[in-house]
Amino acid sequence: MEKYKNREDYESDVIGRSKLPKGFQVGVIPLEFYPEEKVVNSPLPMNLSMILLEEKTDSFAGVFTKNSFPGHPIIHGREMLKAPYTQGVIINNKVSNVRCAGGLKTIDNILYALGDELNLNRDLFFSSSTGIIGWKLPENDIIEAIKKLPESLSRESIYPIAKSIMTTDNFPKVRSIQIGEGRITAIAKGAGMIEPNMATMLLFILTDINVSRVDLQRILTRVIDQTFNRISIDSDQSTSDTGLIFSSKMVHGISLDTFEEGLLSVCSDLSQDVVRNGEGTAHVIEVNVKGVESVTVAELIGKAIINAPLLKAAIYGNDPNLGRIIQAIGDVTGTHGIYINPDELTLSMGGDILYDKGVFTLNDELELKLNNYLKERMFNEKAIGYPEHRNNVVIVVDLHNGNHESTVFGSDLSYEYVRENADYRS
Amino acid sequence: MEKYKNREDYESDVIGRSKLPKGFQVGVIPLEFYPEEKVVNSPLPMNLSMILLEEKTDSFAGVFTKNSFPGHPIIHGREMLKAPYTQGVIINNKVSNVRCAGGLKTIDNILYALGDELNLNRDLFFSSSTGIIGWKLPENDIIEAIKKLPESLSRESIYPIAKSIMTTDNFPKVRSIQIGEGRITAIAKGAGMIEPNMATMLLFILTDINVSRVDLQRILTRVIDQTFNRISIDSDQSTSDTGLIFSSKMVHGISLDTFEEGLLSVCSDLSQDVVRNGEGTAHVIEVNVKGVESVTVAELIGKAIINAPLLKAAIYGNDPNLGRIIQAIGDVTGTHGIYINPDELTLSMGGDILYDKGVFTLNDELELKLNNYLKERMFNEKAIGYPEHRNNVVIVVDLHNGNHESTVFGSDLSYEYVRENADYRS
Repeated sequence: MEKYKNREDYESDVIGRSKLPKGFQVGVIPLEFYPEEKVVNSPLPMNLSMILLEEKTDSFAGVFTKNSFPGHPIIHGREMLKAPYTQGVIINNKVSNVRCAGGLKTIDNILYALGDELNLNRDLFFSSSTGIIGWKLPENDIIEAIKKLPESLSRESIYPIAKSIMTTDNFPKVRSIQIGEGRITAIAKGAGMIEPNMATMLLFILTDINVSRVDLQRILTRVIDQTFNRISIDSDQSTSDTGLIFSSKMVHGISLDTFEEGLLSVCSDLSQDVVRNGEGTAHVIEVNVKGVESVTVAELIGKAIINAPLLKAAIYGNDPNLGRIIQAIGDVTGTHGIYINPDELTLSMGGDILYDKGVFTLNDELELKLNNYLKERMFNEKAIGYPEHRNNVVIVVDLHNGNHESTVFGSDLSYEYVRENADYRS
Repeated sequence: MEKYKNREDYESDVIGRSKLPKGFQVGVIPLEFYPEEKVVNSPLPMNLSMILLEEKTDSFAGVFTKNSFPGHPIIHGREMLKAPYTQGVIINNKVSNVRCAGGLKTIDNILYALGDELNLNRDLFFSSSTGIIGWKLPENDIIEAIKKLPESLSRESIYPIAKSIMTTDNFPKVRSIQIGEGRITAIAKGAGMIEPNMATMLLFILTDINVSRVDLQRILTRVIDQTFNRISIDSDQSTSDTGLIFSSKMVHGISLDTFEEGLLSVCSDLSQDVVRNGEGTAHVIEVNVKGVESVTVAELIGKAIINAPLLKAAIYGNDPNLGRIIQAIGDVTGTHGIYINPDELTLSMGGDILYDKGVFTLNDELELKLNNYLKERMFNEKAIGYPEHRNNVVIVVDLHNGNHESTVFGSDLSYEYVRENADYRS
């Protein structure tokens, strides 16, 4: 369990873990982009952020959304993954550069201006955007801002960027780990929950540990599968989800296993920060599905539980409405033809068995106990702006039909989710 | 378009279309079941309802949920579908008889008491329940109530049952059609939206048109696929979803095609009544997906759109947040490996094209127009208790990649949905 008394307490902790690995600089320029003429506008401040390697590197890797309508930065980024070198990424929030006319040309123009300003090759950079879908990037404003970028660069801390890439995020999300002489530092924004049509996950991981490109891609994919692919806020997969990792290769002698372990720890913490981010999130729900034939089945059932709106609303209201868990399991397994024996399933919440050998083991005492369990695990609703604790509501489902398992994380469904998503733009 | 000024206006219309087909009687007995000792209780009145054929029939058919944890009435009902005859169904609301100890034995005891009371064979009846999952039926109370059933039977109207099977339904749902000398009358309760752990669809269809059992089952399955299987409120499939049809076979000479056409009309209207039922529902969303390779793909994409929480919340807020439609289409097609060419897709709302040839065709004028379109299609929030109109928000998606299409119906996501589902029991 980890607790913060208030936002300042959290921020000082985050700043403490925001140290950059060797060989990186970061910078931020605020953009004044509030197109007042828009019918549905956004009051969100727009920022231009930069992660710059001091030397170009051939060690970088990425994962992108599987959405069939990828944003222009995704289309460009997939090409960049085939490039011999990169030297970093330029990032904006507020406008996502998805499915607007001329979006790829805009990226080219921005990256050419960036290369010229930094006296570097023009084809060394990724572009990353998050925000409203369908709007065009303010290309001229961004190119003007690029002129101020060099003077903003610093080797100190990733914290300014963690803040500047936020859209409706409630707090900046940073995780870092020191491994011998090496370091892995990562930031994320989003996702889901309250992000209007900004339901985007951006993830940037920086390391100075020397890892070959092929190993970096392999390890990144494996770690994402075990962390960010096991969280789900509202079951939406955005057009812009992006995870990029860069290595400056300055620290040698750290084994791949040790590196992967460190990366897993960083991404595990960071992905849970994202779940905990939602305004109005009152409970984080941790669902462990075990005794199944494969990890894939465990994840499918786990995600069906954490994405069931009726269950999410009940947990928000501290109602241990267990029928809804059974309903969600029965729905997904019935629909996908997954074998399940209702008489063999065991279900528990907070360690108490609720359903066993085919029937609910409910009684008044147990309902009261679970009601209290849910109340105790609520966030303090006034504690907006930092992740108050990691005291999850734990649901365990055992199908007694195999040796595989998986744990997924989600959040409850609050009034605030709906209000935020209904009212954000208009 | 169909409009009611108020609840009385609607009820008089419903009563007018509640005529029973020949050969049926219905009755209702209120049950006093308020288990005050429960920690999480339900203030909902409980009723025992009966649909009785005057003579037993060999012409009946049914469809049940695919949920892997079917309620005891479903398990019993699947067996009844193999029986030579039936004479009707006994129905209760409030408690669903799902996954509680001894649930099948309870059904046996109730149906035995019913047969004895009516001087009929004990194995002629279906049992149907909707309500909280995990609680036991109040068996003794029900058996006491059965003694009063015969005197409550009437040939007049199905309206009392349409009301008495409601759980959190806002209004009774009845549709009826006269075909020559014959009639089809159907009632439904639910589903989803606000039904707490009562997210159950019950559907009972009565007809006096002579149709053989095998034809009845074939036609029912086909009609349900085109109507109730094309609505989705919160993507949950309950443990108790049930559709039953009974024919008294008293009216001859009506062709199967004419019968099917009538049943389709009744079920189409009734399924849209169900979508419109939700308290807090401000918009009904109609999504037509066309230009695809199969009806299955059209339904998959259509349901992905109407189940996307971010889109549902945006429509609730009258925000034409079209990026979320693209996101939902891209998400489901990317996840399921369905071919889609983003440059070929056309998307419209209310007849206005929003996305064409790979890019959004948005401008301020169009956004304002769509904002007004959504506002005009809002329900009057004070119009609880009847379905105010059928002025749907219409979204059309054309993938230009085939000749198949399908239309699905869903609702927006409101604060009230969350409040109702969070607070209902506790």
